[in-house]
Amino acid sequence: MSSAPAPRTADEPVPFTAADYRARMERAAAAAADAGLAGVLVAPGPDLTWLTGYRPTAATERLTTLVLAAGQDPVLVVPTLEAPDAERAVGAAALTLRDWTDGKDPYAVTAPLLDVDGRFAVSDNAWAMHLLGFQKALPGTSYVSLTEALPMLRAVKDAAELERLAAAGAAADATYEEIQKVPFAGRRETDVAADLAELLRRFGHSQVDFTVVGSGPNGANPHHEAGERVIEHGDMVVLDFGGLLHGYGSDTSRTVHVGEPTAEEQRVHDVVREAQAAGCAAVRPGAACQDVDRAARAVITEFGYGERFIHRTGHGIGVTTHEPPYMIEGEEQPLVPGMCFSVEPGIYLPGRFGVRIEDIVTVTEDGGRRLNGTAREMAIVS
Amino acid sequence: MSSAPAPRTADEPVPFTAADYRARMERAAAAAADAGLAGVLVAPGPDLTWLTGYRPTAATERLTTLVLAAGQDPVLVVPTLEAPDAERAVGAAALTLRDWTDGKDPYAVTAPLLDVDGRFAVSDNAWAMHLLGFQKALPGTSYVSLTEALPMLRAVKDAAELERLAAAGAAADATYEEIQKVPFAGRRETDVAADLAELLRRFGHSQVDFTVVGSGPNGANPHHEAGERVIEHGDMVVLDFGGLLHGYGSDTSRTVHVGEPTAEEQRVHDVVREAQAAGCAAVRPGAACQDVDRAARAVITEFGYGERFIHRTGHGIGVTTHEPPYMIEGEEQPLVPGMCFSVEPGIYLPGRFGVRIEDIVTVTEDGGRRLNGTAREMAIVS
Repeated sequence: MSSAPAPRTADEPVPFTAADYRARMERAAAAAADAGLAGVLVAPGPDLTWLTGYRPTAATERLTTLVLAAGQDPVLVVPTLEAPDAERAVGAAALTLRDWTDGKDPYAVTAPLLDVDGRFAVSDNAWAMHLLGFQKALPGTSYVSLTEALPMLRAVKDAAELERLAAAGAAADATYEEIQKVPFAGRRETDVAADLAELLRRFGHSQVDFTVVGSGPNGANPHHEAGERVIEHGDMVVLDFGGLLHGYGSDTSRTVHVGEPTAEEQRVHDVVREAQAAGCAAVRPGAACQDVDRAARAVITEFGYGERFIHRTGHGIGVTTHEPPYMIEGEEQPLVPGMCFSVEPGIYLPGRFGVRIEDIVTVTEDGGRRLNGTAREMAIVS
Repeated sequence: MSSAPAPRTADEPVPFTAADYRARMERAAAAAADAGLAGVLVAPGPDLTWLTGYRPTAATERLTTLVLAAGQDPVLVVPTLEAPDAERAVGAAALTLRDWTDGKDPYAVTAPLLDVDGRFAVSDNAWAMHLLGFQKALPGTSYVSLTEALPMLRAVKDAAELERLAAAGAAADATYEEIQKVPFAGRRETDVAADLAELLRRFGHSQVDFTVVGSGPNGANPHHEAGERVIEHGDMVVLDFGGLLHGYGSDTSRTVHVGEPTAEEQRVHDVVREAQAAGCAAVRPGAACQDVDRAARAVITEFGYGERFIHRTGHGIGVTTHEPPYMIEGEEQPLVPGMCFSVEPGIYLPGRFGVRIEDIVTVTEDGGRRLNGTAREMAIVS
């Protein structure tokens, strides 16, 4: 593959402003109050990025937490040595910084901001040690995960977010169009994975999160990434790739075949394609998340492969490539226009091959709209 | 800089075996029992890597947890779709896998493995949502962070670990020797940071965790990484870099100067160098962690810069570049032969410049032994 830079597929979007972040923080605080909560404790990661634009290098044992509560200005508790970075975040203009120095008890610093007997939502990925710190400092408080308490908080995307997700999807589509042109047979999975990563970056991704290349029997492990296996003529190859572009995610799967497929391979692929279409067709406002899973699963079960579809049908996408809402049996959350998630059924035949087809779909008033537009028929590669 | 590959500085060490991991798991279970705990819940991350060799791609909302308890075989609870990866971990031969499928309650799957009224240590970085899941499934249980309960668990390195840490230190030293030869003035911090990353990899690092280049005023922010600032003649430049080699960490800082320093710059550098030497000299079995901090801080305070040393003196290092024990006021943990940690005092003059000098030091029967051997005098670069 050429390593020459190519034009990005999307223009820079208008950056989010402090007012955007203020509105999100107010929405989160209001939603918490509506849910009977005293507030929200937000950890570094996607919640904090979405609410403030602040992305600390890493979540660490040093407490960083954003405290949101209705009728109270947002306060970001940060280690002193990270305060200069936090101050530079766009959303910093919409909150108050409170820093703490190594050696101080950060929970004691945070405690005065919290109701002593309140119930708080806490970021799913907050470190357990920090939750234990709060529970110990304020024994009268109680906690619930943010996703359990406010699953809708980041799930419904606004127009500016949808614009970014569509741009990420278009870049993933361009990547898939190009990857079909590279040689597969005789190269290692990791070589094709490197091509996928290069293409995602060429088409504008700032971050590549995964480049799954599951050839032959490796495709039967839905969590396989890419290994040393040399792809052979006659292999089915699952491709699943994505990352972030302008801060929002892409995540697409297509399953290609090196040379002509067998009748069985074609049949399995057809079943997955029909299941994926059925899942997408089930997307409409008011349907439950589990309805999407059921629709896709019904097709696969009907054709006798129900036991070989061993994961949920989809997951939300936004500032991460993996977030609520989840398209899974038991999830009764109604779909709402603006939600974005994957629809990605698969069939996995251990020791033989796998097939997965995945698009990102957004809910509109009229039903589901795919953010990926490449052909879902099995492509033949060389 | 040349991008030609160069020989790695260290031969491949003998890989850890299932027996090594079994011994670590038994040690952890025994330590938990000694501490009055019913067991340990281990999350993906450094604890799980150290105990089993299993490194899931990422910690996620899907529960993966290793359950350790004295007198009970270790059980690794994993999502079904990650089970094939977990089975391939070297330590998998020393434990039982128990997988759970999307849609099932993973806490209910784990609960039968736990004493219903036991107290458990949980990995610091376990997700809060998973801790809340256990607390809800088993209301009679209680929890403490693994670092608080068993701070020594990973802190004392054995000979095979020390060999790896020494190799990582040697590679960092080779990196520092080479970086002094590159041009600084007229290049961006990010350019020098890219050089550091390339050198770390050239000398054998499989992972680069950080390449701090803090020039002029940026050096006064101890958490600054590397930015677009163009380095100028006359700048002081803090370099702080490290990553993983053979699975164990390096972390070294040196502060260099572009051209001749002023008398004040030289004085500040001399103070930090003396403080760093005092910190290292305080390392001996039986001393407390805080004694190392106090020794280094006393020198800086004596010279009037006490308010400008705004972080702890050091942190442990092992399978991560940042772990217990911490060299910080209030940490009374006695030093034990085999512990490895950084000694890295600094002085930060806001808006002007910073100086930090850092070595990894291991505790021996005779005192501290540095794993970094490059000159600590201020190097002049061009």
